[in-house]
Amino acid sequence: MTLISLSRRLRRTPFSNGVEAAGVKAYTVYNHMLLPTVFRSVEEDYRHLKTAVQVWDVSCERQVELRGPDSGRLMQMLTPRDLRKMLPGQCYYVPIVDETGGMLNDPVAVKLAEDRWWISIADSDLLYWVKGIANGYRLDVLVDEPDVSPLAVQGPLADDLMARVFGDSVRDIRFFRFGWFEFQGRSLVVARSGYSKQGGFEIYVEGGDIGMALWNALMEAGRDLDVHAGCPNLIERIEGGLLSYGNDMTDENTPHECGLGRFCNTQTAIGCVGRDALLRVAKDGPVQQVRAIEIHGGAVPGCDRYWPLMDGNRQVGHVSSAAWSPDFATNVAIGMVRMTHWDEGVELDVVTPSGIQAATVHETFWL
Amino acid sequence: MTLISLSRRLRRTPFSNGVEAAGVKAYTVYNHMLLPTVFRSVEEDYRHLKTAVQVWDVSCERQVELRGPDSGRLMQMLTPRDLRKMLPGQCYYVPIVDETGGMLNDPVAVKLAEDRWWISIADSDLLYWVKGIANGYRLDVLVDEPDVSPLAVQGPLADDLMARVFGDSVRDIRFFRFGWFEFQGRSLVVARSGYSKQGGFEIYVEGGDIGMALWNALMEAGRDLDVHAGCPNLIERIEGGLLSYGNDMTDENTPHECGLGRFCNTQTAIGCVGRDALLRVAKDGPVQQVRAIEIHGGAVPGCDRYWPLMDGNRQVGHVSSAAWSPDFATNVAIGMVRMTHWDEGVELDVVTPSGIQAATVHETFWL
Repeated sequence: MTLISLSRRLRRTPFSNGVEAAGVKAYTVYNHMLLPTVFRSVEEDYRHLKTAVQVWDVSCERQVELRGPDSGRLMQMLTPRDLRKMLPGQCYYVPIVDETGGMLNDPVAVKLAEDRWWISIADSDLLYWVKGIANGYRLDVLVDEPDVSPLAVQGPLADDLMARVFGDSVRDIRFFRFGWFEFQGRSLVVARSGYSKQGGFEIYVEGGDIGMALWNALMEAGRDLDVHAGCPNLIERIEGGLLSYGNDMTDENTPHECGLGRFCNTQTAIGCVGRDALLRVAKDGPVQQVRAIEIHGGAVPGCDRYWPLMDGNRQVGHVSSAAWSPDFATNVAIGMVRMTHWDEGVELDVVTPSGIQAATVHETFWL
Repeated sequence: MTLISLSRRLRRTPFSNGVEAAGVKAYTVYNHMLLPTVFRSVEEDYRHLKTAVQVWDVSCERQVELRGPDSGRLMQMLTPRDLRKMLPGQCYYVPIVDETGGMLNDPVAVKLAEDRWWISIADSDLLYWVKGIANGYRLDVLVDEPDVSPLAVQGPLADDLMARVFGDSVRDIRFFRFGWFEFQGRSLVVARSGYSKQGGFEIYVEGGDIGMALWNALMEAGRDLDVHAGCPNLIERIEGGLLSYGNDMTDENTPHECGLGRFCNTQTAIGCVGRDALLRVAKDGPVQQVRAIEIHGGAVPGCDRYWPLMDGNRQVGHVSSAAWSPDFATNVAIGMVRMTHWDEGVELDVVTPSGIQAATVHETFWL
């Protein structure tokens, strides 16, 4: 139970006043910004997320905006996913790789127009890489971080709540598509997306000045839906196999190691700076890969460092995220496992700070 | 009093076990890594730092390593400081700017050899910018983050403590120079530098495996010097005018606005990607600049957001860091002030969350 020291460097968000009023108990720091992690308790927030609807301050999903004639070219340089068929109005989950094929971020690209994109980033200063590439290749493109702060509405009642604030047509937004919706005379991007498996939306709030008005409007409209302030939930995201950059993958890993090969079209992603480095792994496959790991026995402690995965005395991987799952009555975890041991049902030992526990490798998450 | 949620993404350091055993009370997050902020109390740590000696886990000052024939060229591309006269064995404080002249980081460059540099970074993923530039300009250089974690020894008794562990010749290291010193058969860079005005050293611990051995050796050798675990101290760094990237400056600011014009040689820093953008401000000067701000009245609360600096109803700047100083019996602060109001002695009002307090602009810090 250690405290966090606040300073301007750990940026507040347009919704921080609402988050505080809702009784936030703990934060993490994500893209130099405060991200709530607990309101009532991780378990209570988890149960509520699965049954009602929550409003999440995910402002820390900062945007990298690309504008100008070379925007599309630059976007393709960043990712091994083939973007040729992507249309304005679509969102793509895009692995971003450096020239060695190492993951720099795993954002969602939002195509606003042929010459305007947002990249909604995970926890690394992707802005710096994109600006460096744009400058080095002398591209005609503006790259910066706009005043856009995503607010997520997640949970089974998300459609009902959103319809009350934005009108029934939000129900028609398809998965990973977005539309433009009015709030207080301002037109906002609303996408069907979010960092949970419970369904919902992300509102790209352009202009922090209307942040609290929107927060309050959602809270008031959802009172009888039992709306609560929430946040990405550790248990639910592990159950659903949602990876976290910096936890479950780093720049040491290729997209294929992260199980993101299905989001790569390495052959046809012409222009991607990491393409050459990835061609071989795209063809041969990786030597280690992300897996769902079930950890048997009692509830594990918080996972704040890699826990070795052992086959006897030999380390064959590590666990990077773990939590006790009330719904599945076991510890759910995400790990990276060597090819020799990654098949369904392989039995291993995991070395936690509180002792060794038996674990089973699974090929699918708890969905 | 909010808690921090730990996860692998907020990286532990080679010294974390020592930091915990020493009773760390609070952390911040810096370069995706844990940085202690309080051990006994901020005031008690401050008093001790000024009278004895402390060992600081500043692993979060991550290194960007440049290696290869284009290292020197790349280093000059990053900064408007002229590096032509810099020799191996020297450390330079170098503002790093983008193509618009905006500050991306304010690290210390360590020249290990003509073709090998470390950049000891402040809180932003400078690695991404440097890799992007190196790739875009097709330079022959390797850029990565090595396993190097700085450990600082700071305070008036730092020389005595360091001499006991590394030998008397550490006393001969001049300010912002470094030498190579042995510990457990390994050769480490030891520089006379650090983020305090009390004097001391930074040991660039190459190889995390010897981290705790060095930590323990320093703690044991310094027992009769009253050595304690410490950390960068908010009060002491404001008194000394040590800026903090992300707090007192961002990519919105030029080096000249940050008062770092003396570290720029914009005319002769040929190759710096921000040179064109900075030529005019280097000649004409900035329109706002960092200043020491004395805030009168009772102790201010923690400064976790910009506090407006007002001349009547007109905002003329903001405060970005502030703390009560026991030694100067006033609130010491760092702010950015418009040219019209930045002269010594100008009286302003500062709007804190607990009310408006009178403030005086100063041209020098509390040294």
